[in-house]
Amino acid sequence: MNTQQADVLILGAGPAGLLLSQLLHQSGVRSIIVERTSKERVLSRIRAGVLERGTVEALHEANCATRLEAERIDHDGLILSFDGDQVSIPIHELTGHRVTVYGQTDITADLVDACEAREQQIYWNCPDTVLSKLTSEQPCAHFTDPTRGRVEIQAKIIAGCDGFRGVARQSIPAHIRTESERVYPFGWLGVLVDKPPVAHNVLYANHAEGFALASMRSQTRSRYYVQTSPGETVEDWSIERFWTTFKARLGPLSDGLETGEPVEMSITPLRSYVCDQMQHGKLFLAGDAAHIVPPTGAKGLNLAVADVRRLARAITQWDKGYEADLMRYSNEALSRVWKVERFSWYLTALMHQFDDHSVFEKKMQRAEFDYIRASTAAQLSIAENYVGLDY
Amino acid sequence: MNTQQADVLILGAGPAGLLLSQLLHQSGVRSIIVERTSKERVLSRIRAGVLERGTVEALHEANCATRLEAERIDHDGLILSFDGDQVSIPIHELTGHRVTVYGQTDITADLVDACEAREQQIYWNCPDTVLSKLTSEQPCAHFTDPTRGRVEIQAKIIAGCDGFRGVARQSIPAHIRTESERVYPFGWLGVLVDKPPVAHNVLYANHAEGFALASMRSQTRSRYYVQTSPGETVEDWSIERFWTTFKARLGPLSDGLETGEPVEMSITPLRSYVCDQMQHGKLFLAGDAAHIVPPTGAKGLNLAVADVRRLARAITQWDKGYEADLMRYSNEALSRVWKVERFSWYLTALMHQFDDHSVFEKKMQRAEFDYIRASTAAQLSIAENYVGLDY
Repeated sequence: MNTQQADVLILGAGPAGLLLSQLLHQSGVRSIIVERTSKERVLSRIRAGVLERGTVEALHEANCATRLEAERIDHDGLILSFDGDQVSIPIHELTGHRVTVYGQTDITADLVDACEAREQQIYWNCPDTVLSKLTSEQPCAHFTDPTRGRVEIQAKIIAGCDGFRGVARQSIPAHIRTESERVYPFGWLGVLVDKPPVAHNVLYANHAEGFALASMRSQTRSRYYVQTSPGETVEDWSIERFWTTFKARLGPLSDGLETGEPVEMSITPLRSYVCDQMQHGKLFLAGDAAHIVPPTGAKGLNLAVADVRRLARAITQWDKGYEADLMRYSNEALSRVWKVERFSWYLTALMHQFDDHSVFEKKMQRAEFDYIRASTAAQLSIAENYVGLDY
Repeated sequence: MNTQQADVLILGAGPAGLLLSQLLHQSGVRSIIVERTSKERVLSRIRAGVLERGTVEALHEANCATRLEAERIDHDGLILSFDGDQVSIPIHELTGHRVTVYGQTDITADLVDACEAREQQIYWNCPDTVLSKLTSEQPCAHFTDPTRGRVEIQAKIIAGCDGFRGVARQSIPAHIRTESERVYPFGWLGVLVDKPPVAHNVLYANHAEGFALASMRSQTRSRYYVQTSPGETVEDWSIERFWTTFKARLGPLSDGLETGEPVEMSITPLRSYVCDQMQHGKLFLAGDAAHIVPPTGAKGLNLAVADVRRLARAITQWDKGYEADLMRYSNEALSRVWKVERFSWYLTALMHQFDDHSVFEKKMQRAEFDYIRASTAAQLSIAENYVGLDY
């Protein structure tokens, strides 16, 4: 058994764990990261790519924004379409802020590069981590490293950044966890394609046959989605069926669409989930480990970064001897979490077809869209959430 | 059989029908009103009392605003309370407009007085009205007048202002009516009491045990409500039980409440309903005959007045030979109707306890309240709807 001491042990080398480690490093706090899977696997994950201003700021704070600044594409607005009618929401005009397109895959790569440059200790390929003594002064993690064998890490603080299926949240005893969940009765089929985007701004369409979304990753790479029925798998969808469906749902907004073979094609289920305790003893959860949003508002990564920023500051204070921020972390993080869950749920409810909707509910969905078209206040409400609420 | 000719036949002598008749009179268009029940019954109905600015304007246009101007009480804001937390929405500060407290009972009395002053023909006590030939050039109504016997009125236009259970909407063949409905799983127990109001502004409370609302009719008369369970009747509620429940739900906001014996006490079911055709041939629907909103937004009377204002203008144009506005009436009225239905549904969903809500839905309701507390845009959205959308 190799035994190691650490001030901060971080579970998970996704963008949340990597960013936390990097922000702590900037403040002079050392950490060790343990990751379930391989570096290659982490670097190949394809995820969201629309960043709130707060996320961009955090990457600057982390000193990991060089490539971001060179490659970022800013958006001034977003477009909602409903049965062929449209409203363009001028987010910059309304809020003074923009959102930034830069892929999560690229952020992860930048953060891994930064870790390697400063020789951050990361244990890759350790899927069997077990946590213990979380409510003591010396919480522990045990796992098997592929080359070094059994490892015990005795930490002062453990940060659970290991995602929805990770061990961190599951280490909180079930009887003291309060969980809220909604599983939506549909999924998203996503296609990544090396073609110029059909639209510069993100385009959300609610069509009688279902939702569709057009977004860009770069000037030559596009990410498109369509709502799928429950139980459908990628095998049910040929790329031809995808393009036919996507064009029909976008209607005239698909004019100029360039189709092609997909770089990647997969189905994501849609879920809202919150664990209403983000702290248990010396364990602190951040990102998907504590909450999941449906991808409609592009909030998953942004919310994780908001957690991590708050947690990094609290740990930095704790390291200086001030524990109050850390003790407030769970409540204060959850305050934002619920607001972001609300927005993600709202935009999901507005823009999808629900098989179980009554006629009245369908009419209310359309009335919401018509109200948004007519009201600057309603547009501002969407815009301020889309660009990211203030801290 | 007495046969009579009329340009405009109005069904219903509630505030919608009376106001239509009055506005048409101001434009030189004559009408006849037929009412199912007695004048005494119409004058004794106790209903809403919060007027949008557009409703106040309409009463001025109708030249029926003398007593309104003498007795009106204006409100600058409204208060929402959720499990003891509060947000005050400064509607005047946000929108530049106020809402006005003046009872529907008083409006009805003012309009009946105006009818009598100009000798408006009103058939009272005619519950057996039947409409026919609605899609011809000469639609007809047949009914029995208590003193004159059988009457036939041959009209050019029939305005259906006879409420949700009236004959007008039911005279549109079922196969060409599109109806949307939601019946809420609770009611409102309302108490009218001759005591000074506990609060100047309208107060909405969502408490774990259910909704409560405090409003004023005058400086000495208050109207209070609590959410009741499905199936409950007035007999299930003593006045003592009402006051205990009301105080518990208002919490500290009930400080200074003066209780007493009720002037009136009744239970109202909550319903959203829209008939998506407000025209059938020469028949035009207005107010509750075409749509019902739950009372939460105080919109029922205001929406009826908005219909009537639009219909009076369209009929005035038609009388001058221009039919286009009348042909657009249904679509244009419905555009507002759906927006007001949306707001009434939204405020109802926000402020009531729903037995069938999941934990996640309860959390979203609370998150909506917290978002409103934190966001000027969200407050403005409520305020602009509360004071009344522009025409």
